[in-house]
Amino acid sequence: MPQSPKNIAIVGSGLVGSLLAIYLRKFGHQVTIFDRRPDIRTIEFSGRSINLAMSNRGWKALREVDIEDEIRKIAIPLYRRAMHVPDKPLYFQNYGLEGEAIWSLSRGVLNRKMIDLAESEGAVFRFNEKVWDVNLPEAKLYTGETEKSEWQEYDFDIVFGCDGAFSRVRHKMQRRSRFDYSQDFIDVGYKELTIPPNEDGTHKLDKNSFHIWPRGRFMLIAMPNIDGSFTCTLFLPFEGAVSFESLTTEQEAKAFFKEHFPNVRKVIDNLIRDFFKNPTSAMVTMKCYPWTYWDKVALVGDSAHAIVPFYGQGMNAGFEDIFVLSQLMKKHNDDWETIFQEYQRERKPNADAIAELSHRNFMEMSSKTADPDFLLQKKIEKWFYEKHPDKWIPVYSRVTFSERPYTEALAIGDHQEKIMQEVMKMPNIHKIWNSEEVERKILSLL
Amino acid sequence: MPQSPKNIAIVGSGLVGSLLAIYLRKFGHQVTIFDRRPDIRTIEFSGRSINLAMSNRGWKALREVDIEDEIRKIAIPLYRRAMHVPDKPLYFQNYGLEGEAIWSLSRGVLNRKMIDLAESEGAVFRFNEKVWDVNLPEAKLYTGETEKSEWQEYDFDIVFGCDGAFSRVRHKMQRRSRFDYSQDFIDVGYKELTIPPNEDGTHKLDKNSFHIWPRGRFMLIAMPNIDGSFTCTLFLPFEGAVSFESLTTEQEAKAFFKEHFPNVRKVIDNLIRDFFKNPTSAMVTMKCYPWTYWDKVALVGDSAHAIVPFYGQGMNAGFEDIFVLSQLMKKHNDDWETIFQEYQRERKPNADAIAELSHRNFMEMSSKTADPDFLLQKKIEKWFYEKHPDKWIPVYSRVTFSERPYTEALAIGDHQEKIMQEVMKMPNIHKIWNSEEVERKILSLL
Repeated sequence: MPQSPKNIAIVGSGLVGSLLAIYLRKFGHQVTIFDRRPDIRTIEFSGRSINLAMSNRGWKALREVDIEDEIRKIAIPLYRRAMHVPDKPLYFQNYGLEGEAIWSLSRGVLNRKMIDLAESEGAVFRFNEKVWDVNLPEAKLYTGETEKSEWQEYDFDIVFGCDGAFSRVRHKMQRRSRFDYSQDFIDVGYKELTIPPNEDGTHKLDKNSFHIWPRGRFMLIAMPNIDGSFTCTLFLPFEGAVSFESLTTEQEAKAFFKEHFPNVRKVIDNLIRDFFKNPTSAMVTMKCYPWTYWDKVALVGDSAHAIVPFYGQGMNAGFEDIFVLSQLMKKHNDDWETIFQEYQRERKPNADAIAELSHRNFMEMSSKTADPDFLLQKKIEKWFYEKHPDKWIPVYSRVTFSERPYTEALAIGDHQEKIMQEVMKMPNIHKIWNSEEVERKILSLL
Repeated sequence: MPQSPKNIAIVGSGLVGSLLAIYLRKFGHQVTIFDRRPDIRTIEFSGRSINLAMSNRGWKALREVDIEDEIRKIAIPLYRRAMHVPDKPLYFQNYGLEGEAIWSLSRGVLNRKMIDLAESEGAVFRFNEKVWDVNLPEAKLYTGETEKSEWQEYDFDIVFGCDGAFSRVRHKMQRRSRFDYSQDFIDVGYKELTIPPNEDGTHKLDKNSFHIWPRGRFMLIAMPNIDGSFTCTLFLPFEGAVSFESLTTEQEAKAFFKEHFPNVRKVIDNLIRDFFKNPTSAMVTMKCYPWTYWDKVALVGDSAHAIVPFYGQGMNAGFEDIFVLSQLMKKHNDDWETIFQEYQRERKPNADAIAELSHRNFMEMSSKTADPDFLLQKKIEKWFYEKHPDKWIPVYSRVTFSERPYTEALAIGDHQEKIMQEVMKMPNIHKIWNSEEVERKILSLL
């Protein structure tokens, strides 16, 4: 028994909103998408994006609605990290096994494509229309010029909030009693910078690598675009000795880039122009519960679970929400109350798990990369994994190249960490780290 | 150099708002208090209150503005817990040392008194006036009938948000970037019930005790009022086998009270009437940061840190905020930016500490009171404390009968807990619990 067609509103025309529209159209529903911003296809990009890394979970969700190939065309596979470490030659770390890659996508380019695809499936977009209020039990939306102006009322069967970390739909749910909610900002901000292509349109750095300049409390990354450019992200504390606050003049910025990122000095003028043109953005972990209201309203993607970007899983997690929803829609047909209940029950622990993993990656980056014990531990893990790829799948691979639940990756990662803590206590571990003794120890603890 | 007089708004005429008004008037400021509700002196109480337990921190804050004696007149000292445990005779546990007590106050009676006192100090109250928006950098307030009606604008020098856990003032601060926020509801709700006085006006139960009927997942408490009645609070899960959800008819409620609280069956008709008349309320832990905006806006009391009521410290913590603020006002005179910065830096860790202690008390109540090991541990602690009152001040006393920081009580409590975990591992501890061996062990670990 297929689902009866419903009249469905989606708030937010971002990546999650437009993919959800495609899914819902395939199920035969009528779909209207509201966005307070103009059509991204008609305007310049914001200058506040971090490039996206599509990995297995994301691809799986695209495959389900037959748009995987279309998106691969605008994506570039990254097989390895390229590490730009001071006083060391450039070196590479493969992400996974032969052929395993994450795929670099410009957020703007992808979003435009997804809107095109949703439109060609018959979804109706209402850009520049601001949703100010939601009647949750009746799935009504109210839009208007300003919060205090005359509002227009729309009547729907179901409303999906895909309006991001600062969701207006969730905002309405927050006012109810017994709604759990948290938002935690980190003290590091980010800024988008660009490395332009060579004159012949080729990339200035290896295009199949994720480039990282780790510098302890701050870091630069670069991911390729199909036009030959790289979108870079500078992560830097808001306040302190080396911080966004402390870099206020062109001279200061120039000295900063020259000192810390000498191998991009050829494009330093571009970097500095972007540095002062583009906004500085904050990063937040947002958790909430419940995600749904009766059979009427559901939050999907960042509006339900916003995470810091240090695992590259924000979009992938949102797309996985949609895949899970679609499986439940097939299973429960018109019983939307059950669909929504099972959706939030299944996804909430996984969203919490990837939030935790992402935050840990941030903490590791900012405090542990200079710790020799931590580096030794990582070296031992890698050595053991290469010897026993069947016995020790690293957490990164479980998150990125598998479709098993995030909760499982977190739990197994914690178990591996406990084993490694035992290993690190072995006498003389820094000398015997790649000995048979260590190998036997790990095997015995597994 | 005293402070220059400022034109100050307080949003919220509750206990914290009215005490703050008294303080600010003593400093010579002009004070206007807005409240969206009518004057509590002119209306019936809400039927959703838990009686208050004033302890040392609260009294200290009242003493500072010479209103301690006035409030003592409407308070009743409770020297002990009266434990109503099934199949056991009623027994008593002293709260502290000889003469140490917490003081029972009806929230409504206290609030009326505090408003009288603030008014006689010259504070101006604007009841029934709803604040809908705050201009933070300019300390402007906007009030009106509804969110969409015409608003009136007020211009102030400083605005204090004393408008409780769901603060409108904080709501405006939440919309800024980098504002940390969390709200977590517990799955237990509460309901106010009343035990009326005897016909001659005396109390039906011992009036100098805090009465508790602990029942594992739920519990009834009773605290005396000066009119001879007791305000009771029934704490009960929202959902489940024995829950608010499961008690829907008078018959079910009657059976519930008869089975679990047999010694209040004489007033069962009152309890049942209240049960269906009074609302069921939820309990939340709310944390946020920052608490202030420049030298313009500050949150005080529940609007900055709402906690669950299981340590009886909500009002005391709010009053302590005000005491700390007043000390900083004396120290920094007209430098309100420094006053506010030091206020939030000093109070935030203490607010987090009492939130943690209060939540732990809830967890202990709901999951540990049936655990024989836990009860044995508490018995050992009590036994040791009585032998060595100078060496082992219990956390409860540090929180309730001291004015040392909450953070200190939490840290020392954690240390004591670690010691007790060692003690509980001693072989045969349930037999030797009050032996010299155990005494020596604790002394050695202190």
